[in-house]
Amino acid sequence: MLNVVIMAGGSGERFWPKSREKSPKQLLSIGSKDTMLQETVKRAQALTSLENIFIVTRIGLEEEIHKQVSHIPKENIINEPFARNTAAAIGLANIVIHKRDKDSITVVLPADHIIKDIGQFKKTITTACIAAEERHLVTIGIKPSYPETGYGYIHRGDKIGSDTPGIFKVVEFREKPDLKTAEEYFKEGEYYWNSGMFVWTTKCIEEAFKKHMPELYKALKVIGNSLSSSLSDEIIKGEYEKLEKISIDYGVMEKAENVSVVEGLFDWNDVGSWLALEKVYEKDDDGNIVVGDYIGIDTSNCILIGDKSPITTIGVSDLIIVNTGDVVLVCKKTEAQKVKKLLENIKQNKKLSLTLS
Amino acid sequence: MLNVVIMAGGSGERFWPKSREKSPKQLLSIGSKDTMLQETVKRAQALTSLENIFIVTRIGLEEEIHKQVSHIPKENIINEPFARNTAAAIGLANIVIHKRDKDSITVVLPADHIIKDIGQFKKTITTACIAAEERHLVTIGIKPSYPETGYGYIHRGDKIGSDTPGIFKVVEFREKPDLKTAEEYFKEGEYYWNSGMFVWTTKCIEEAFKKHMPELYKALKVIGNSLSSSLSDEIIKGEYEKLEKISIDYGVMEKAENVSVVEGLFDWNDVGSWLALEKVYEKDDDGNIVVGDYIGIDTSNCILIGDKSPITTIGVSDLIIVNTGDVVLVCKKTEAQKVKKLLENIKQNKKLSLTLS
Repeated sequence: MLNVVIMAGGSGERFWPKSREKSPKQLLSIGSKDTMLQETVKRAQALTSLENIFIVTRIGLEEEIHKQVSHIPKENIINEPFARNTAAAIGLANIVIHKRDKDSITVVLPADHIIKDIGQFKKTITTACIAAEERHLVTIGIKPSYPETGYGYIHRGDKIGSDTPGIFKVVEFREKPDLKTAEEYFKEGEYYWNSGMFVWTTKCIEEAFKKHMPELYKALKVIGNSLSSSLSDEIIKGEYEKLEKISIDYGVMEKAENVSVVEGLFDWNDVGSWLALEKVYEKDDDGNIVVGDYIGIDTSNCILIGDKSPITTIGVSDLIIVNTGDVVLVCKKTEAQKVKKLLENIKQNKKLSLTLS
Repeated sequence: MLNVVIMAGGSGERFWPKSREKSPKQLLSIGSKDTMLQETVKRAQALTSLENIFIVTRIGLEEEIHKQVSHIPKENIINEPFARNTAAAIGLANIVIHKRDKDSITVVLPADHIIKDIGQFKKTITTACIAAEERHLVTIGIKPSYPETGYGYIHRGDKIGSDTPGIFKVVEFREKPDLKTAEEYFKEGEYYWNSGMFVWTTKCIEEAFKKHMPELYKALKVIGNSLSSSLSDEIIKGEYEKLEKISIDYGVMEKAENVSVVEGLFDWNDVGSWLALEKVYEKDDDGNIVVGDYIGIDTSNCILIGDKSPITTIGVSDLIIVNTGDVVLVCKKTEAQKVKKLLENIKQNKKLSLTLS
């Protein structure tokens, strides 16, 4: 059976001030009427039936998630008691699924990607499932459209399997490169962006945890044995508390032998910062992206997000302006990566952190 | 008897979005805990007693004004049915005062000036009263501290009166100059900024209206005769409707012979635009003026007014940012004069004009 795990516990800090602790990016509408989570569920529904779609999230978001996707069975919303990065989240979902379905192929999808071409998305996942059935841990790679320095890269090797096109051995995972290296990767054509989407069998990833992350494996075993018990929540909490924060890429994918990459044949935007909106929305004649109420004079190349409270401007350019009514952010476009740092500063401000973080 | 007329009917459009139709600049706190009107009343109280202080304003503001300065007798708040510029406003106040006190010296003060040195202010007005008793129409001139192009200038002539220092004949009123001319005025030292403060006797200004603005004079006579009648409001409305919008400078001061200027010996700021705040508030180490809640990274030389809703910034400089919660303005400092134009655009927007103008 095909199961889908949607990773919806992120905090989307670089999307502050729209993204907040209690309403992170994936629960907002960006580039669509529906929220990013709702859009992700729609993609998952193209792959499997509702009862086979799981959502991993952090405690505190489950109610809003249930409200947004009430057609997903409530017991399929898996709550992590603490944020422990993607390896733990995937591991937790895996044991829940394994309990139900020992022969599952599992597709892991982040809840905060924009993918419009569902047909090509389905085609890619179908190819990945073929590799997964051959006991591969499959990662979905995105063909770079420019030399981005903000993503990890996957260096692909030889083609695997003669019958199915588009499956490749992974030579190496590469950290976020500097611009020069990114330009080389882009030119060479054998590098993919690491999208954070994965496909494997429940058994294969469990074996990989056993081999490469034995501590996590042990914790998951304890949790797995407790799942039907009334103490389950307490046991998960106790085990989680001890876990290291490690990503699935670092903890498993970079170490495992049986890793392959399938090229994603669809459009892809991980909405990593406010700048990502330039690929989501159409610009007006002055190069501005406008969402919500806006009136301006002599304003160009700005990203203007005033959907909760209007924005007005005179004589400015190359700015990101986000007005959420309770706070405004005015950020030079080239400094968009510093929003996370700004949020840290806000969290240290007693008066403002309560309402704004 | 000394009476003071405070002109409080302005709309303060260049101070949008803090200044609004229903709560214009003079009714806001700028550079002080108290509102500009309250500060102006305090200055007036240094000159005369409460029952001799009058406030001219436009219909719609009288309640808020009464709330702010409830110690001023309610009947001393004079409502104009329409805005007809300063000549009409001064004329209307003048007939109300003349009805009570035929021998009044009247001091006219705009409600939106910041003057901190009340001692020197009182001294200046006392000097002006001496000239007013000699049947002069006296304007208060401010010694320029730099070549401002946004004010009208007064070219002073010979000294008048041997006993009292600081009273000069007016050679000519000058329109707002270009920068080169302003620099000449500044260098020559015989030019004052036209502050919009005046001192005269009720009789003298009435005679001046009769001579230089006969239409207004006639309307004021009709209004004066109706003042105790129950039809007074209707009659004022009927007469006002016909009046031209003319300033007292253009309508009277530039034409009259008996005009003199007294140098204001006090600090003075007419808070003409957001930039004026640079002279009101202290800058922080990065050259920013901050009012209200603010958190920023790499931000310099900005005016940040977030007293109703916080402002956050990254990597910006030389901007005016005003966040009133219901709207934000982001304006390049050098374009501060265009706020008025922006407000015109807003007034033409059906959806936004209702709440934001």
